[in-house]
Amino acid sequence: MAQLLSSSCSLAFSSTNKPCLKPFNQCSTSFSNTVGCDNSRTTFRRLYLREQKQMKRFAVVNASTVSTGQEAPVQTSSGDPFKPKRVMVIGGDGYCGWATALHLSNKGYEVAIVDNLVRRLFDHQLGLDSLTPISSIQDRIQCWKSLTGKSIELYIGDICEFEFLSETFKSYEPDAVVHFGEQRSAPFSMIDRSRAVYTQQNNVIGTLNVLFAIKEYREDCHLVKLGTMGEYGTPNIDIEEGYITITHNGRTDTLPYPKQASSFYHLSKVHDSHNIAFTCKAWGIRATDLNQGVVYGVRTDETAMHEVLCNRFDYDAIFGTALNRFCVQAAVGHPLTVYGKGGQTRGFLDIRDTVQCIELAIANPANPGEFRVFNQFTEQFQVNELANLVTKAGEKLGLDVKTISVPNPRVELEEHYYNCKNTKLVDLGLRPHFLSDSLIDSLLNFAVQYKDRVDTKQIMPGVSWRKVGVKTKTVSS
Amino acid sequence: MAQLLSSSCSLAFSSTNKPCLKPFNQCSTSFSNTVGCDNSRTTFRRLYLREQKQMKRFAVVNASTVSTGQEAPVQTSSGDPFKPKRVMVIGGDGYCGWATALHLSNKGYEVAIVDNLVRRLFDHQLGLDSLTPISSIQDRIQCWKSLTGKSIELYIGDICEFEFLSETFKSYEPDAVVHFGEQRSAPFSMIDRSRAVYTQQNNVIGTLNVLFAIKEYREDCHLVKLGTMGEYGTPNIDIEEGYITITHNGRTDTLPYPKQASSFYHLSKVHDSHNIAFTCKAWGIRATDLNQGVVYGVRTDETAMHEVLCNRFDYDAIFGTALNRFCVQAAVGHPLTVYGKGGQTRGFLDIRDTVQCIELAIANPANPGEFRVFNQFTEQFQVNELANLVTKAGEKLGLDVKTISVPNPRVELEEHYYNCKNTKLVDLGLRPHFLSDSLIDSLLNFAVQYKDRVDTKQIMPGVSWRKVGVKTKTVSS
Repeated sequence: MAQLLSSSCSLAFSSTNKPCLKPFNQCSTSFSNTVGCDNSRTTFRRLYLREQKQMKRFAVVNASTVSTGQEAPVQTSSGDPFKPKRVMVIGGDGYCGWATALHLSNKGYEVAIVDNLVRRLFDHQLGLDSLTPISSIQDRIQCWKSLTGKSIELYIGDICEFEFLSETFKSYEPDAVVHFGEQRSAPFSMIDRSRAVYTQQNNVIGTLNVLFAIKEYREDCHLVKLGTMGEYGTPNIDIEEGYITITHNGRTDTLPYPKQASSFYHLSKVHDSHNIAFTCKAWGIRATDLNQGVVYGVRTDETAMHEVLCNRFDYDAIFGTALNRFCVQAAVGHPLTVYGKGGQTRGFLDIRDTVQCIELAIANPANPGEFRVFNQFTEQFQVNELANLVTKAGEKLGLDVKTISVPNPRVELEEHYYNCKNTKLVDLGLRPHFLSDSLIDSLLNFAVQYKDRVDTKQIMPGVSWRKVGVKTKTVSS
Repeated sequence: MAQLLSSSCSLAFSSTNKPCLKPFNQCSTSFSNTVGCDNSRTTFRRLYLREQKQMKRFAVVNASTVSTGQEAPVQTSSGDPFKPKRVMVIGGDGYCGWATALHLSNKGYEVAIVDNLVRRLFDHQLGLDSLTPISSIQDRIQCWKSLTGKSIELYIGDICEFEFLSETFKSYEPDAVVHFGEQRSAPFSMIDRSRAVYTQQNNVIGTLNVLFAIKEYREDCHLVKLGTMGEYGTPNIDIEEGYITITHNGRTDTLPYPKQASSFYHLSKVHDSHNIAFTCKAWGIRATDLNQGVVYGVRTDETAMHEVLCNRFDYDAIFGTALNRFCVQAAVGHPLTVYGKGGQTRGFLDIRDTVQCIELAIANPANPGEFRVFNQFTEQFQVNELANLVTKAGEKLGLDVKTISVPNPRVELEEHYYNCKNTKLVDLGLRPHFLSDSLIDSLLNFAVQYKDRVDTKQIMPGVSWRKVGVKTKTVSS
């Protein structure tokens, strides 16, 4: 029996029984052995619920199913009244957001995903696609419920629409908000003027709205905001975690670390950081800014449970991150495309560490009024080093891997000093996955598995930092 | 005879003869004696021109009149091909913008004003008014033409609409753009969520559009952007001009000075600064960021030529700056309202120095790719010091001036270290007007002259940094 779980939803307009899209014996992890995938017992019951009075400008969808009574009950956190329980993951249908939502749900948090699904629209508009086939957010959530008995609430809408966001906040009452809900590609922001403006408007205004929603409706709610290591640029001194103590003309103060972002996307995160810092000071907001490095990998414990849960994996020149792209290039016999000299150094992390870091930040909230900044990466690599690592790993798999230098579409130093601190998350308990341990299994083999889905036209850079113009580009494959 | 001056305008839909609104013998400066105000000879001919094909979303208005042949011709700068001649003043109908437009015109630059006049709308919406009666921008420009023979072109529209901005750029082809066209009040940005969002969206997107317009249509054009000293906040070390050299763990770099803005308005300027810096680096834009202090005074040589040219003077709690407000309070017998302890220190400057600074920046352009930052103020004062100065000056005029402390509506340190560098504009030739010389004549006497226009309900702070909420405030007097 389908059952209405959310009191805010009053109308069931569709209810169908549908089998799991793939037999559970195709599950690729040990989960199917330890928990048991019994497709014959578990069926998908779709319940699309819409609250009619809120349908003018946005949709609230609570997708859930009922426990059969035999599944494990939803685990909640301990009785500690100060421990956050209810987490809202904005952008929970995206690459990092989806993995995070499942991880938090798996760890016993109650989770709601808030997303307008525009990332899927970008793929359509730009003629791109994830290497991995990804299911709809509704199917993903149903599958998760079926596998684990854990419900994830789903709110479909745009946080730039404050009417939607305020209703979502009042309905869900989060203890923590993880905010991935931003346009997150530097090349996307450099396609043309309209994308540059979209990126800054969407990201800055969305975050302002979240800050106002917290102040108005959930003042104790902890904002966990995704920033980027790119906010710092590549200064010729060590990069600290958010702040730097400066002695100048005989006086000393600890100030926000200077920012030198190098795309309209990275700049939008700089703007967010400044806005959030102000609201912490003025309103007592508690916030953690996670300046994340370049994320690689696709599998997490949770997304590997079932292929319906599979995460997206971007290898194209717009949304693909360097290492992911290199692995796909190696898999299909395309030369690794190093931009310019390849001496660019960045911080990197496995997506399994992304979800771990978010969990650590939530479990150890910032104090009221505190604007806490963590540098979220585990290792530094030069682009050339990455190319070498992928080449060697590819050779072990019998791949013939070549590397070429392509003209750098970006404006960035190609040889520079780079030394970033990243101790705060380790101090909280982060146990990193290192690239050397996961490169072949988690990345290269994965790319090889899906190589037939690769569209090689999407690999070469097509967006130039210097040539960006005002004419709207109607890009397609 | 009215004559069409702009080739982009094809339709004259209205042409009336109208006498000067005030006899020129009411001119309050020596200009009327030296140049001669002959109302009987000069008439106002209004020529409103609209280009029909562009009228869907914005209006281009070129208001001008014809020389009678007896007036002095428009002075242009020397034949030096590298000297900027054509200046676009965005926000040229505002407090600083209007004074600047006239000053530059008077100094021989060709000037166009770009403005959507929304500052006048804010007054209507909030029930505010300038202490001084101000004329319409059309009448202002007509009066200036009549007095000096110099034309100022007028483009009415919103720079957030790129279609308008691009047509304006292509039509006017500026050598320099002075960008005052932003929502410029910190309290306005703290009224409610919608004003906070408006401020950041308007300011950030408008500036992005200007940057794209320069890149696309006038890549050698020098952007002179108004920032604010408030971007720096009140650090416990000396404030440098835009950049600070930091030695850290044995290495040294010169980096953007850390920003700690304390309102959504001030933050919008921080965002602009970061965006502009990036485009200088990525595109080779030449830009000067003028981090201006608190401006006081109203008269400049040019606005004093005729009362139709009179500048606005805001004394209310939303748009009024501290010193202007104190003078009005003294004039009407209202206690000077010091926020909190009054130990807040800021940089101040006379509006006559604002126009001088802009002129210096234009005449000495930044190099291509250079992001130059000048701190634009001439003196530092504590708020308490200002109150004391106004009290003593008021006593000389026979005014009984009292000071009260009111609860500080802002979130700011009320006692702090403050030492800012401001040598770069002096090095370029700035000759400051100091407050001690102008307080009585230029400010207090002026406030007394117009005291009957004061609405005392507008003086006390009504906007709280801590209480700002999501409900849209329908504020009126």
